Amino acid sequence: MEKLNINKEIKKIEKALKQTIKSDNAVLEEASHHLLLSGGKRVRPSFVILSSEYGISPRNEDTYKIAVSLELIHMATLVHDDVIDRSDKRRGRLTISKKWDQDTAILTGNYLLALALNNISSIEDKRIHMILSHAIVDVCRGELFQFQDQFNTEQSITNYLRRINRKTALLIQLATELGALSAHADHKTANKLKRIGHYIGMSFQIVDDILDFTSTEKQLGKPVGSDLMNGHITLPVLLEMRENPEFKAKVDALNPNSPKEDFVYCVDYIRQSSNIDAAKQISRQYLQKAIHLLDELEVNGATTWFKKLIKRMESRNI
Amino acid sequence: MEKLNINKEIKKIEKALKQTIKSDNAVLEEASHHLLLSGGKRVRPSFVILSSEYGISPRNEDTYKIAVSLELIHMATLVHDDVIDRSDKRRGRLTISKKWDQDTAILTGNYLLALALNNISSIEDKRIHMILSHAIVDVCRGELFQFQDQFNTEQSITNYLRRINRKTALLIQLATELGALSAHADHKTANKLKRIGHYIGMSFQIVDDILDFTSTEKQLGKPVGSDLMNGHITLPVLLEMRENPEFKAKVDALNPNSPKEDFVYCVDYIRQSSNIDAAKQISRQYLQKAIHLLDELEVNGATTWFKKLIKRMESRNI
Repeated sequence: MEKLNINKEIKKIEKALKQTIKSDNAVLEEASHHLLLSGGKRVRPSFVILSSEYGISPRNEDTYKIAVSLELIHMATLVHDDVIDRSDKRRGRLTISKKWDQDTAILTGNYLLALALNNISSIEDKRIHMILSHAIVDVCRGELFQFQDQFNTEQSITNYLRRINRKTALLIQLATELGALSAHADHKTANKLKRIGHYIGMSFQIVDDILDFTSTEKQLGKPVGSDLMNGHITLPVLLEMRENPEFKAKVDALNPNSPKEDFVYCVDYIRQSSNIDAAKQISRQYLQKAIHLLDELEVNGATTWFKKLIKRMESRNI
Repeated sequence: MEKLNINKEIKKIEKALKQTIKSDNAVLEEASHHLLLSGGKRVRPSFVILSSEYGISPRNEDTYKIAVSLELIHMATLVHDDVIDRSDKRRGRLTISKKWDQDTAILTGNYLLALALNNISSIEDKRIHMILSHAIVDVCRGELFQFQDQFNTEQSITNYLRRINRKTALLIQLATELGALSAHADHKTANKLKRIGHYIGMSFQIVDDILDFTSTEKQLGKPVGSDLMNGHITLPVLLEMRENPEFKAKVDALNPNSPKEDFVYCVDYIRQSSNIDAAKQISRQYLQKAIHLLDELEVNGATTWFKKLIKRMESRNI
């Protein structure tokens, strides 16, 4: 078997993704292609492939099918999220709602999800289907919880953690678990990889939520503070509200019709708050747990890559 | 095995549907429940169960799973259709968009689809998963074609037939085919049942499209002529436009901002047109084909019920 090179693998995935989204409907193909071009780091496929290295038949046909499907599911959720957030931009490019219209975005999201399912329908291993479909139900529930939690300043940190688990960690946990299962890893190993995926996913989303405050519009590809402007209350805000009643009053007062300066005030406040560091610390703890578990697994060609990806995530965290 | 009574079977399905939509999210559960209460004739589950009678293990556990899942998929497409058509009512009840809001409707649709998939994930037979997921991709493509064909008066009748195939016939064809496969019917029988489902589905949608003109608001549970008002050009209109350039000019001029009286004029025109009968005739031809194929199958406990359901469909057609 060829030595593992994750960059090469990602290229393979890109090619397979392009192949999969071909359609007899020009708009569906263009819209899906538009999304593909928006890039993304193909985090989920990478973890599928890396995790398969811990099984007895790494990088087999099923592994690639799962890698492609998880990225398609991820894309589908982004498209529907953008509809619900009425976002104009994602990663610096127009969203489908903006470039085409909202209805096209809804239907493209459905189409991508259907493609994802179709793409793995030929996999024999029933466990994979059961784990995946169960997780998709959870992701859907999570999306509604996120929607309902908008502008809810009374939510607890536990609530936030549960939400980002469903929103992000679940899919990354699926990537590591299903990657391992596709390669027939033993039960214990698959379970460890699942937990590694969970911890990485939690850390990943916390960092994303921090960057939404600390980064620049250019790097984010969308306005700084978009989360708060859409009513999504994330960890830095929750931490700050907990110890600062004056700030909490400001956030309490926010609603979809608040003047922009009220949002900007809160965003700027958080940017300078020590709770950015506190949130980073929590994210790092999750990564530590992932690394700890990784060290319990046998060392193989994937270990270095796994650690590299985790490092890269940590370094986003500056 | 208990003698087949489709009304009893439908009650079983209703119970299973109620059980399946239970959720820890109150809104998801209420919205799904609201949809369930809107009723519908459970056409798809009925055909799944009837078709299973032609196999060697009728009405087994897989049969019921498929029956429930197809109804959930059907419900999911209705919810998203209502978002795209901005419909306020469906079967006399408020749509989810109207009772809650559009975002809740999008997410409820996703949730129902996810539940449907989860519900059949434990079925062993790979063919069932492959046929189903492939069909869902087609249904999604069909929804976009339907959206793109809105107010397109240059579309052909072939185009219309392809669209209603994807929109309706595909799911009913899935019901008969998967019902048969779930009970391990032989390949030839499953294939005949698949074609029977296709013909029934085509007829069913044509009748639906006729009733949208000829029925009453009370019976439809939504305004008469809703299809045309949403820009959906259906068979009676296509037939009339083909032979009546003056009428075609009127329809050509319609757009989403046309005054209501322009729509009402066209709707009234079609109500009195002989092309209503011509459309009925086409629908009847499809049903004839279904009956013809049904007569080629062995007679069993399902045959009478099958013919009863088909008759009931014909009698809607008056």
